[in-house]
Amino acid sequence: MKSFLRRGHVLIESVEPQVDCGRYRAKAVAGDEIGVSADIYRDGPSVLAAAVRFRGPGDKKWSEERMTHVDNDRWAGSFTPDRIGVWEFAVEGWTDRFATWRRDLIKRVEAGQDVDVELQEGAQILEGHLKAIPAPERNRVKEAIVSLRLPASDASQKRAVGFEDPRVKSALDENIAELMSAHHNRSGSTITKPTLQLTVDRELARFGAWYELFPRSTGRPGEHGTFDTAAEELPRVSEMGFDVVYLPPIHPIGTTYRKGRNNTLEPEESDVGVPWAIGSPRGGHTAIHPDLGTLDDFRRFVKESERHGLEVALDFAIQCSPDHPWVTEHPEWFVHRSDGSIRHAENPPKKYQDIYPIDFDTGDREGLWTELKGILDFWIDTGVKIFRVDNPHTKALPFWEWAIESIKDEHPDVIFLSEAFTRPKVMKGLAKLGFTQSYTYFTWRNTKDELTEYMTELSAGDTAKYFRPNFFANTPDILHEYLQTGGRPAFKIRLVLAALLSPAYGIYSGYELGENTPVAPGSEEYLDSEKYQLVHRDYEAEGNLNRFITRINRMRRAYPVLHHLTNLRFHEVDKPNLMAFSKSLPGETPVLVVVNLNPYHWEEGMLTLDLDALGLDPWATFKVHDLISDETYEWQGSQAYIRLDPFNEPAHVFRILR
Amino acid sequence: MKSFLRRGHVLIESVEPQVDCGRYRAKAVAGDEIGVSADIYRDGPSVLAAAVRFRGPGDKKWSEERMTHVDNDRWAGSFTPDRIGVWEFAVEGWTDRFATWRRDLIKRVEAGQDVDVELQEGAQILEGHLKAIPAPERNRVKEAIVSLRLPASDASQKRAVGFEDPRVKSALDENIAELMSAHHNRSGSTITKPTLQLTVDRELARFGAWYELFPRSTGRPGEHGTFDTAAEELPRVSEMGFDVVYLPPIHPIGTTYRKGRNNTLEPEESDVGVPWAIGSPRGGHTAIHPDLGTLDDFRRFVKESERHGLEVALDFAIQCSPDHPWVTEHPEWFVHRSDGSIRHAENPPKKYQDIYPIDFDTGDREGLWTELKGILDFWIDTGVKIFRVDNPHTKALPFWEWAIESIKDEHPDVIFLSEAFTRPKVMKGLAKLGFTQSYTYFTWRNTKDELTEYMTELSAGDTAKYFRPNFFANTPDILHEYLQTGGRPAFKIRLVLAALLSPAYGIYSGYELGENTPVAPGSEEYLDSEKYQLVHRDYEAEGNLNRFITRINRMRRAYPVLHHLTNLRFHEVDKPNLMAFSKSLPGETPVLVVVNLNPYHWEEGMLTLDLDALGLDPWATFKVHDLISDETYEWQGSQAYIRLDPFNEPAHVFRILR
Repeated sequence: MKSFLRRGHVLIESVEPQVDCGRYRAKAVAGDEIGVSADIYRDGPSVLAAAVRFRGPGDKKWSEERMTHVDNDRWAGSFTPDRIGVWEFAVEGWTDRFATWRRDLIKRVEAGQDVDVELQEGAQILEGHLKAIPAPERNRVKEAIVSLRLPASDASQKRAVGFEDPRVKSALDENIAELMSAHHNRSGSTITKPTLQLTVDRELARFGAWYELFPRSTGRPGEHGTFDTAAEELPRVSEMGFDVVYLPPIHPIGTTYRKGRNNTLEPEESDVGVPWAIGSPRGGHTAIHPDLGTLDDFRRFVKESERHGLEVALDFAIQCSPDHPWVTEHPEWFVHRSDGSIRHAENPPKKYQDIYPIDFDTGDREGLWTELKGILDFWIDTGVKIFRVDNPHTKALPFWEWAIESIKDEHPDVIFLSEAFTRPKVMKGLAKLGFTQSYTYFTWRNTKDELTEYMTELSAGDTAKYFRPNFFANTPDILHEYLQTGGRPAFKIRLVLAALLSPAYGIYSGYELGENTPVAPGSEEYLDSEKYQLVHRDYEAEGNLNRFITRINRMRRAYPVLHHLTNLRFHEVDKPNLMAFSKSLPGETPVLVVVNLNPYHWEEGMLTLDLDALGLDPWATFKVHDLISDETYEWQGSQAYIRLDPFNEPAHVFRILR
Repeated sequence: MKSFLRRGHVLIESVEPQVDCGRYRAKAVAGDEIGVSADIYRDGPSVLAAAVRFRGPGDKKWSEERMTHVDNDRWAGSFTPDRIGVWEFAVEGWTDRFATWRRDLIKRVEAGQDVDVELQEGAQILEGHLKAIPAPERNRVKEAIVSLRLPASDASQKRAVGFEDPRVKSALDENIAELMSAHHNRSGSTITKPTLQLTVDRELARFGAWYELFPRSTGRPGEHGTFDTAAEELPRVSEMGFDVVYLPPIHPIGTTYRKGRNNTLEPEESDVGVPWAIGSPRGGHTAIHPDLGTLDDFRRFVKESERHGLEVALDFAIQCSPDHPWVTEHPEWFVHRSDGSIRHAENPPKKYQDIYPIDFDTGDREGLWTELKGILDFWIDTGVKIFRVDNPHTKALPFWEWAIESIKDEHPDVIFLSEAFTRPKVMKGLAKLGFTQSYTYFTWRNTKDELTEYMTELSAGDTAKYFRPNFFANTPDILHEYLQTGGRPAFKIRLVLAALLSPAYGIYSGYELGENTPVAPGSEEYLDSEKYQLVHRDYEAEGNLNRFITRINRMRRAYPVLHHLTNLRFHEVDKPNLMAFSKSLPGETPVLVVVNLNPYHWEEGMLTLDLDALGLDPWATFKVHDLISDETYEWQGSQAYIRLDPFNEPAHVFRILR
């Protein structure tokens, strides 16, 4: 019975944000205002008060912000984590005895009741809270107590008093009410436990433009590139407005079962192999492909990227070529078949003989996991803080939770991007387990309905609490049919969508040139894919999208509304190929995007704005300035005529001028 | 790191049913099939298996039922608690190595691959699981192992085999697959924890018809009734088909500030007082009002009720008249004002001087709570198993959790009905904290829209997991305007709705006579309310609804679909005053109700049936038999014409004959 005796009257339920009952952490960015809400109620008609309690990494003491009642016993408040790391929060709710007494006193005085006894009780309540009032203010409360205890002007006769009674005036003094609200003691308060946690990242975790680049392709035609030649690309990538330069694996590549050009099984002597077939006698995951340079060269590349405002992202692919040093040094980390051979990767009946997967269920689990974390530590030491993780869904899920937690414990600024294209709950699971960002189904969402449904799922549901999308418009593995057939307009359309729907997005080099030839009809693989060979490009070739991309990336940087996801709202357009969406934030210029999804033909239609979502009055006249065409229109009300010709520009990106 | 090393690959999330992350218990009835579902997934493409584990009160060992994959990584299974008490359950998920291997083998053979090594691995897997196979079946698995290890028919040459290969046949033997599926060991399995709990009640917790009766009104005109005269009403109540006879407080009534007829403050000497003003010098909550009889008389009344198939529900009202023995014996259980007086009940500026509320925050919390629980124990000892709790939302919420848990721990068959009419989350909170059933807003939901919205909330949402409605059509406190003005048809309509929408419902005596005069216009209080005086009735008076009520209660008993809530479905009718709903269960006759909500006039319209909800084919011809009019109609398809005249019968209650 004893434990029940200690329980308070106040119940607190359904605290948000939480993910799977607090099993996982919600995600945020330092400087974000985190809205916290909860159902808070108690028995009886007492006035309640509530606060969100929070503390940052390393804090011993709790801070707090008061919550307010919204509606239907739902309370809301917020706090703003000011630095990265794991934050904790909880909700406290308690009975505000003074406010309850004050509310009832007003009703009694209004009803003309005798309140002599109530005033004495008010004095008692004030007295009971006196210690909680800061010393400089205490005298004011003491004075109120004295005043409440004065005899009634006609004390011999019990009678009704009015609001003009000096004792009632003291009792209802707004200053006293504020002091008591701010400082009263909270005996019997309820605090939720266990605390909920929040992973607070730097802004790049949510907002950033990624550029994927094979360093080996940056040499002169016919020559294998190096980190030094790759560094020559940095000014170009930086000028286009990208934030991250992502490199496929930079490690030695195996030769056993090496794949030739266009994924042939009989390579030529000169074929460079697949960077994801990691490991050769020259080393494994902590070695550098000798043709790319040395570790010092790489460090210099990282420094040079930094100088251009770019961060380097490395690829973390936990798999080995048959020539990886682990195959001989740690055969116990692989699955051995009954004939003694090591099991290669497969997806029956498909076989990938150039790759050995790691056995996460090895008897030497601790040795393996420690080694894998060591790889991350090694590259972090070179200055790399971003890892794009290859196929994490084919590796033990508990490994990721442990590895990401361990790394972020020491380096909370590290970012992990999950490259999982698999079932929705597995992709979401990886995000819950700790991945900072995730690849998505974006590439396969091309119609207005598909995009609207998917964006609603990502931006408006529970998912947004922990799953941060990174919309790659293409990857070395995915050249969607839409790009294959839609020409230059298709590349512009998909860029606008990727870059403006999602705060984080990326392209793989060649996108700016509209490269769109598949290896075979119906395939999403590139012809002469860079996965198997060097691809030398003229980035200034005619028809390039460099300036278009630059313009879009500049808008992204200039307008803070584009740094967020949950502020996305769709607007109605009466044509299936015209899609409109906006992003808004209090105090910031809203941005409205209208896209023609048809890369083959102009489309026209009527746009019906959700003026409320844009913070506009129903009959307001306002100007919209197209950041792409640089034209300005004057609109009134919610309706606007739209005509977009993809061979001119397939999209408007309006800033709304109020 | 160590703890992570032990974690399995399989993740299990969003287990249902659970209430507030398992903080509270979901509710069920013994014999119910409890559907359990969860998201279950792991890394990689392995085949998973899952089971729901469960155990009943006192069980040490767990039982289990296997779950199956539904869609999108959601799994479902069920179990059926066979007795009342607190049940626990959990979900276990694991990797089925044999099924994974078998699935892949099929793909390999289909692709014409050499599977020699795979067959050896299959033999190894079988061997590894041999101990888990029950001894009588083990030989079959051993034979399969031998067969898998046979040399290939042409062992000298690696080559593809077909499904006709005897080793492949052994490997894919359905019997072996079933044995392995049922009995393989589950190394690395994940079991959710902590376990989730379920309060399993007897059927009366969900399904029952209540009849509220003031025993003191059962005497001859002008005389105070007794338990003996009240017992004379039992045959009538029983014959009408009620299950519970609920008595307002039967304790001595205070005289200080006693209320007179129609809530006047100046009672006459002969006024009997309000039964909820509990306590006089003759005793308090464990005493019986001397005019009603003795404790022995009460015990006899309970026995007599039982003989008529009725259970007695008592009123548990934690409050005292100023004459209650506790006022002198335990003054510390009340709030004392600064002038030394005890605080009476109030809702400022309203005062209820005849009632002292209990101070749940008394310094003697343990003494008070123990005494209160003792009251329940006292009446349980007389054979009472049902308590209708008066205004529980004005008493400390943690008290209820403790008291109900403590009582049900010893007497799991006890039923607590929460009489809280307050804010939605507080009403739901009481249900979460343990109340078996709850009063609802039903009385104030009269239009089709109101009823549909409210029933959807109660039957189809999270609420249904823990909140069991008891639809009282009237109470001594609530005579809704609909009944005041709608005449006899209104009483029939509201009875049909209460009794057929909700598995538990009730009426307060006088309903069958259509008593509908309010004390004042706009008031929901009865004129000459039985709360303040004796009310003698002629239950056979002309126009009584006895036969109608009897018919409805008989239907309720006869058709198991009416014993449930979550099986409720609405059907479209094209008129706002015509409402249609049905209840179905697999293997049971569906019941379809069509009601005219307009008590003043006939209504006609087209009903569009949701045939799927009724288990009917789109073009089926079927008969519907009206259990009210005893007429049978032949219908085809989803459309039917409806005409209901409230002055004849305001509702059809069709059983669907297939």
